[in-house]
Amino acid sequence: MTSKPIRAIVVGGTGYTGAELVRLVLGHPSLELVSIVGNQTAGQAVGDVLPSLRGVVDGVVQTFDPDAIAEQADVAFCALPHAASAEAVSALRQRGQKVLDLSADFRFENLSVYEAWYGKHPVPERLPEAVYGLVELHREELRDAELVAVPGCYPTAATLALAPLVKNGLVQSEGITVDAKSGVSGAGRTVSSATSFSETAEGARAYKAGAHRHGPEIEQELSRLAGAPLNITFVPHLVPMTRGILATCYAQPASTSVTAESCAEAARALYAGSPSVHVLDEGQHPDTLWVRGSNRVHVGYAQDRNSGTIIAMSAIDNLVKGASGQAIQCLNVRFGLDEGAGLRAPAQWP
Amino acid sequence: MTSKPIRAIVVGGTGYTGAELVRLVLGHPSLELVSIVGNQTAGQAVGDVLPSLRGVVDGVVQTFDPDAIAEQADVAFCALPHAASAEAVSALRQRGQKVLDLSADFRFENLSVYEAWYGKHPVPERLPEAVYGLVELHREELRDAELVAVPGCYPTAATLALAPLVKNGLVQSEGITVDAKSGVSGAGRTVSSATSFSETAEGARAYKAGAHRHGPEIEQELSRLAGAPLNITFVPHLVPMTRGILATCYAQPASTSVTAESCAEAARALYAGSPSVHVLDEGQHPDTLWVRGSNRVHVGYAQDRNSGTIIAMSAIDNLVKGASGQAIQCLNVRFGLDEGAGLRAPAQWP
Amino acid sequence: MTSKPIRAIVVGGTGYTGAELVRLVLGHPSLELVSIVGNQTAGQAVGDVLPSLRGVVDGVVQTFDPDAIAEQADVAFCALPHAASAEAVSALRQRGQKVLDLSADFRFENLSVYEAWYGKHPVPERLPEAVYGLVELHREELRDAELVAVPGCYPTAATLALAPLVKNGLVQSEGITVDAKSGVSGAGRTVSSATSFSETAEGARAYKAGAHRHGPEIEQELSRLAGAPLNITFVPHLVPMTRGILATCYAQPASTSVTAESCAEAARALYAGSPSVHVLDEGQHPDTLWVRGSNRVHVGYAQDRNSGTIIAMSAIDNLVKGASGQAIQCLNVRFGLDEGAGLRAPAQWP
Amino acid sequence: MTSKPIRAIVVGGTGYTGAELVRLVLGHPSLELVSIVGNQTAGQAVGDVLPSLRGVVDGVVQTFDPDAIAEQADVAFCALPHAASAEAVSALRQRGQKVLDLSADFRFENLSVYEAWYGKHPVPERLPEAVYGLVELHREELRDAELVAVPGCYPTAATLALAPLVKNGLVQSEGITVDAKSGVSGAGRTVSSATSFSETAEGARAYKAGAHRHGPEIEQELSRLAGAPLNITFVPHLVPMTRGILATCYAQPASTSVTAESCAEAARALYAGSPSVHVLDEGQHPDTLWVRGSNRVHVGYAQDRNSGTIIAMSAIDNLVKGASGQAIQCLNVRFGLDEGAGLRAPAQWP
Repeated sequence: MTSKPIRAIVVGGTGYTGAELVRLVLGHPSLELVSIVGNQTAGQAVGDVLPSLRGVVDGVVQTFDPDAIAEQADVAFCALPHAASAEAVSALRQRGQKVLDLSADFRFENLSVYEAWYGKHPVPERLPEAVYGLVELHREELRDAELVAVPGCYPTAATLALAPLVKNGLVQSEGITVDAKSGVSGAGRTVSSATSFSETAEGARAYKAGAHRHGPEIEQELSRLAGAPLNITFVPHLVPMTRGILATCYAQPASTSVTAESCAEAARALYAGSPSVHVLDEGQHPDTLWVRGSNRVHVGYAQDRNSGTIIAMSAIDNLVKGASGQAIQCLNVRFGLDEGAGLRAPAQWP
Repeated sequence: MTSKPIRAIVVGGTGYTGAELVRLVLGHPSLELVSIVGNQTAGQAVGDVLPSLRGVVDGVVQTFDPDAIAEQADVAFCALPHAASAEAVSALRQRGQKVLDLSADFRFENLSVYEAWYGKHPVPERLPEAVYGLVELHREELRDAELVAVPGCYPTAATLALAPLVKNGLVQSEGITVDAKSGVSGAGRTVSSATSFSETAEGARAYKAGAHRHGPEIEQELSRLAGAPLNITFVPHLVPMTRGILATCYAQPASTSVTAESCAEAARALYAGSPSVHVLDEGQHPDTLWVRGSNRVHVGYAQDRNSGTIIAMSAIDNLVKGASGQAIQCLNVRFGLDEGAGLRAPAQWP
Repeated sequence: MTSKPIRAIVVGGTGYTGAELVRLVLGHPSLELVSIVGNQTAGQAVGDVLPSLRGVVDGVVQTFDPDAIAEQADVAFCALPHAASAEAVSALRQRGQKVLDLSADFRFENLSVYEAWYGKHPVPERLPEAVYGLVELHREELRDAELVAVPGCYPTAATLALAPLVKNGLVQSEGITVDAKSGVSGAGRTVSSATSFSETAEGARAYKAGAHRHGPEIEQELSRLAGAPLNITFVPHLVPMTRGILATCYAQPASTSVTAESCAEAARALYAGSPSVHVLDEGQHPDTLWVRGSNRVHVGYAQDRNSGTIIAMSAIDNLVKGASGQAIQCLNVRFGLDEGAGLRAPAQWP
Repeated sequence: MTSKPIRAIVVGGTGYTGAELVRLVLGHPSLELVSIVGNQTAGQAVGDVLPSLRGVVDGVVQTFDPDAIAEQADVAFCALPHAASAEAVSALRQRGQKVLDLSADFRFENLSVYEAWYGKHPVPERLPEAVYGLVELHREELRDAELVAVPGCYPTAATLALAPLVKNGLVQSEGITVDAKSGVSGAGRTVSSATSFSETAEGARAYKAGAHRHGPEIEQELSRLAGAPLNITFVPHLVPMTRGILATCYAQPASTSVTAESCAEAARALYAGSPSVHVLDEGQHPDTLWVRGSNRVHVGYAQDRNSGTIIAMSAIDNLVKGASGQAIQCLNVRFGLDEGAGLRAPAQWP
């Protein structure tokens, strides 16, 4: 506690994940917030842009200046849109800055998969140095990563529910379906009638069914675990809540001996030592409200009474474990801190 | 319009489906509301029990008296809990009353399936006279039904999305998964902390995953259409809204020529002449808000880009097409009225 | 029923009040919908613009053409923004069209009040022909009105709660405070982060406190009733719901003999014969959910135990009695129909 | 940080304020959670009773045992219902335990006021030793308080908005009106149809208008500040959100020189040095979402353009600054810690 704090800067800090990064940095025992960078709102008072910071953070939003950042900060969080993020990350990496990038730009090993879903990559030569920041599955590689690609919110929820099953061969690797329900904050702060209160409350709907770009990200991680390429079916939904992702995943058991309980056992084994994951007891189902505002993941398993299908479920807060909290968790591992530092708070319930 | 109105009585009319039945009966050009029956609230002013009826319906809630009902009414809606409903229905049928029963008691052809999920049936001898009231699939049988078993809310949503595919052999009959998201009113008016505002808002969760009793009801209907018994995987969810069910159904295409568009074509053919069903254009996804308060069903299809899985989606209002509106629709068919009478209103949007 | 239907056209029909007008016109026994006009979305399919009308209303949104409207329709509803509305109304009136205008443009007797709050009036010469469409207070004048200024949502709620008190001298005319809580749909369909789901759910807030332009409109109506100019204090709030206005109004009793019950009596007397208003019994408080989707107004009264202040409360659906339903109610009076025609449905509850 | 932690116990810790107390104690740098006490759920796993604590707090809920508490803990939080709380507090005080009581039992100086609103007081002889825990107004008395009466949620919000005005004579002390809007969690965890999701979403309503027992509590505090007894008008409302209170308060300016800005100045002066209160700039209005989950109070002022009435507004989280956070704040002052320790986190936004 007497050691020098790690100086952190938040680039693209004026959206929802930015606000959440600031909240978590402020509450972290080893971090110090240097500044908030956002080109579109540069010069405005921080509290006017992020109203929860009125009276908490003084000063104004800064313009992006990679030289100043490299000098002032030990680490930068990038919460910019894809492509724009790659440019900013590249500028920071050229100056030797450690970067935790929350965009999709460095999540894919395979450039062609990235470009099929996101368009041309601005700096493909940097892909090899990135480590995928799902701590529970990539902890060792993260210990000396200079560039961390923080996972997408849906891939975090789906992969953590399915990883114990796929890794241990408890389910067949083909035929996996992920039906995910997200709160509206996942759509970001950009305004649209589709995310207005009046057109969202009382509305549940799928979007980009079978064609959402988090699908290939889930496939990448599950294929790694399976040791062979696999395809999944992925349908994201918006439901009328601000935060949270509930992933309900369906897979065929590899044998008749696989049960909900053996799946839970595998999860407990895989996540032993992971401070963020809690495996629910049999019969309990995850609820996004139970993890809201926390970096926690609740995972639970069931089996269909008639069909025998394995049902793997997980709940996260999309802005915390699905984004900003996960970035802090990566930072903790990278800087040799306690993995749960600043992240142990339970959910705000209710 | 000059013909004598059909006199309708609502038994068990003091919960949510009861309130909705009253609203629809009042707005129906050929129906007349005789009274509202509810033993627990008998003697209380209708408007004190159902606050939306203050200033609209005078008088008090009545005690259940089958003789009086048989004399005063041409048809009775029963919105009682299962088992209690079977008793009341039986008393009314003994007096020759036509009954539309919204409970599960008469939905199953196979007594053993009913009893495996609901417990002992009070009057199994009446099962053969019941007709399953999913109008779009049982229209002809309903024309002279004396006892209609109005389908469950989840089976309505799931069956209507899948029927065109299963009936036409577009999908494999094994391996069908139904992931359904329901508004909280589906849990009825009984109070519990699980449906309190504070523990429900911001919470999405599965319940009874793989073990909900609407699963076998969906299987019954799809098996009829497939011409052979089939099993499905069924997981219901609660999401923070009052009304609506969104069913997202996953099935494997029977051949590589099956596409989202061919599924939509099959649906348009099957539902031609059905005033309640609208098949969305390709790329559109159903939204519960778009049908809220109406008897309408929006159905849409997609295909996963990677896995090829067919995604069949439907949205209904659980209290209307999933309960009270469907009961009215059955009545319309039974009494030779226009099937859409009193049910053509679009949703209250937003 | 055998008489020719009244042909109605909805100008500016692609926002929330437009959608609600269409819903109500379709359900009205004496009205026929001619078309929906909206310059910004002209040429698009109606169901693509108003998703609740998919499968209900065919055809496309029309361009504004006053000659065509005058020829095709017996009456036009104008649901355009202020100033734009005055222009359209004027064009229609020049062609002899009866118009129900939902904007603020013709609500004020006093041009200078209008211009102080809304800016220059495009056609001030038309103000004298307009009748303020709060049916309960202006029924007789509406019977031959050619131009009806449909009241604002807040003035409807506040005035109906306070009218019996002010008109009968039960409260002092100075010192009246109106604290109103509105659902988000009152802000219309224009997107903004202030009405996005994420920034609105879990947020209650005042806006334009003491400086909202519905304040002078309430003052105009209450001054008429008081027989002398009066000032009120008015603060509108947004609360996280889609529909509804709850007005809580505070006034000082004119004498110690004034009680909650005498206020309710005065309201029952004033609203006898008004099909839309229901005065609650003592101890009951209005709830926006109890009137949602209906043209009904619930009014109730209480008195502070310590201070003696009279508390007048009312609940309406801002899109129905606060806008589109009230326009239909005006039409009913103007065309000599039953005042409650097409408007008697109870709320959709819950 | 190397000093021994203060050992805290939470009595009545299984409702919403209990959950929030546990969350705040766990995150406090100087506190250690000893146990959670709750007679009704004693013996159950903590995580089964408070689902956000699964995987966070092990062990079971304890039975109330004042001897054990006095031995194990340095301080006890009591979050029991009134009357029950007085008994428990008395038992703890007899053993010399410092107590922070969240019930109403020790908030009133005047026994007769308490008994007029809450019924017979079990231990009136303990009233004199209690200090009212609104830190911003009672900081000095709290420094050596052995029994702290943590204020009610509405009195916290209303008093903090009005205190600068009443204390400085900026407004007339008679004629003050408080219109408060609360989230549903304020009603606690007891189930009722009035707080069920289906009957609460889309519903705004007053309750106990002019007759709520937080009225006299507000009057007590404002009378202290005014130096003479005063009466207010108080109407609480439920709006469809889980957390938050927005108080909109109306008062007549004492002179024509009083403006919104002079009110804000008085507030800035009074709250200088108060880490929890932030006075908004002119034109800004408080929003409950901006403080949700934090111990912060946002206060803002406006003046009605027509009537000149002063509008004082405040937003708090009812479970934090309105209950559990305020209790921690009192503890901080009592134990000589930094007043903002463990309470500086900004809101979770959105």
